[in-house]
Amino acid sequence: MYKIGVDVGGMSIKIGLVDDLGNIVAKSVVETKIDFNLAVKDICLLIKNILEDNKISLSNINGIGVGLPGAVNSKTGIVDFLPNLGWKNVDLVSLIKGYLDTKVCIANDANAAVLGEYQYGVAKNYDSVVMFTLGTGVGGGVIIDGKLFEGEECRGTELGHVTLVLDGIECTCGRKGCVERYVSATALIEQTKDAMLADKTTSMWAYVNGDINKVNGRTAFECAKNNDYLAIQVIENYVKYLSESIMNMLNVFRPKAFIIGGGISAEGSYLIDKVVSYCEMHEYGYKGAPKTQILKASLGNDAGIIGAAALID
Amino acid sequence: MYKIGVDVGGMSIKIGLVDDLGNIVAKSVVETKIDFNLAVKDICLLIKNILEDNKISLSNINGIGVGLPGAVNSKTGIVDFLPNLGWKNVDLVSLIKGYLDTKVCIANDANAAVLGEYQYGVAKNYDSVVMFTLGTGVGGGVIIDGKLFEGEECRGTELGHVTLVLDGIECTCGRKGCVERYVSATALIEQTKDAMLADKTTSMWAYVNGDINKVNGRTAFECAKNNDYLAIQVIENYVKYLSESIMNMLNVFRPKAFIIGGGISAEGSYLIDKVVSYCEMHEYGYKGAPKTQILKASLGNDAGIIGAAALID
Repeated sequence: MYKIGVDVGGMSIKIGLVDDLGNIVAKSVVETKIDFNLAVKDICLLIKNILEDNKISLSNINGIGVGLPGAVNSKTGIVDFLPNLGWKNVDLVSLIKGYLDTKVCIANDANAAVLGEYQYGVAKNYDSVVMFTLGTGVGGGVIIDGKLFEGEECRGTELGHVTLVLDGIECTCGRKGCVERYVSATALIEQTKDAMLADKTTSMWAYVNGDINKVNGRTAFECAKNNDYLAIQVIENYVKYLSESIMNMLNVFRPKAFIIGGGISAEGSYLIDKVVSYCEMHEYGYKGAPKTQILKASLGNDAGIIGAAALID
Repeated sequence: MYKIGVDVGGMSIKIGLVDDLGNIVAKSVVETKIDFNLAVKDICLLIKNILEDNKISLSNINGIGVGLPGAVNSKTGIVDFLPNLGWKNVDLVSLIKGYLDTKVCIANDANAAVLGEYQYGVAKNYDSVVMFTLGTGVGGGVIIDGKLFEGEECRGTELGHVTLVLDGIECTCGRKGCVERYVSATALIEQTKDAMLADKTTSMWAYVNGDINKVNGRTAFECAKNNDYLAIQVIENYVKYLSESIMNMLNVFRPKAFIIGGGISAEGSYLIDKVVSYCEMHEYGYKGAPKTQILKASLGNDAGIIGAAALID
């Protein structure tokens, strides 16, 4: 049997036909329309096309899973609010079922991501898992006793919106000093730019051809690997922010595995090793406690599709 | 049927005979011995006495529950570590069963407290609950789907050891800026003293008869109620620390109820109202999210005994 995974992003919607082992058999992409009615039409049309192209009937799929960036109630099937798209109180499950008569499940995208890693990815052998997705923002996902934990009305596990620095940098959420403002890719880019503006001698300037607008989440990492002293400092600071944020969640959940996902996780063991070293220095939160494996997410660019598909039992 | 609840503290061990409704029928107290073998002897002797005095046989109780201040594995029955008493790797369940052949359950005291409030106290009607116990330190307890959540090897929900202020005040746990260092009774006393030392005109000096060693967790609260400007400032700051720490846990767990327990909770609605007002100013973490009831713990001084008894099904 197959499942359909739909990954709704701010820019594009990715749709995949996923087999029982979590492999993507076929895939297609469409630009995300702001009008949710048009977006739903797009999604359903693409699903029909993918099924036809692969000669699979609707009755031969287990269902459609959809991951979305924002407040999503997986129990009622209603999208409460997507800040980037402005969708509010959209009964997405009913809308999709209007076109395609099959099981439809929806969830927050970070929640779908951790479920994907648990069912098909690096967290397969761990039944308690916490995950950060480090992208434009910071998403959080939690597995407890082998099940997705979402909190009341699925509005918990907003792990990016926990204070790391009281009275710190203003967050889009209205609070100050949230984890998201220190460990997202956006935050790392700001930290890199700030460091560069204060020091014109760093090789990071050459790396971006003198154009600060070309700074991205890789700039400091790549220059640090080439022993640029300032880039090393930027990364050391970033590792501290990330490791402290991770240890906080270890003290809260004490999971068997902690997964680092999202764009930044592409740095792989270069980043993970530094995080583990930092945590190892702390007896109480890490070293002297039951060991939590800190792991890189394994589903990569397809995490959104595979995670969404994992929403279907 | 009855249960025995045992509340092991750093100074004293309290033992109670608890009925099915969570009422304490009889109670006794003994000083806590550092030697765990002697302490266990004391506990078992007192239990035998309480049963005899009330003409109840061991077969007429459902079991013995024990709450302890530290790392306690409720699954294995082993006390991993009690920092204040120095107990390490004590097989407490086996030791007690050696004297009294009945069911014995142990847990961290804050975990027992939240279970007590859920089964017999203010959280009776809420199946997802998070609790802070604000005392010498800050304990954390979590109920998810009507069950105690403890994390791997029962070493999670250390909610006092989550960073509130990166690089903040050093914590006994080895990290810096933990919630415990800002919202425990100990922290409030330090904050009160610091404010007094910087300002000799505050009425808080008269309140403690000029002796700063008499400052306790009530000093700033009482003087704030009498409109002392500095005491009001101390309490406003404290409310900010506490409310931000609470909102963090709301964003993580999004529970139906959040309970404030421990010594500081004696301030009741004077404190709770201020915390709710502070949280109401924040759309994302509180006002615009599914409502969490913020409540004062209801079991008071007997919380430890009743919570321990609640460990027995």
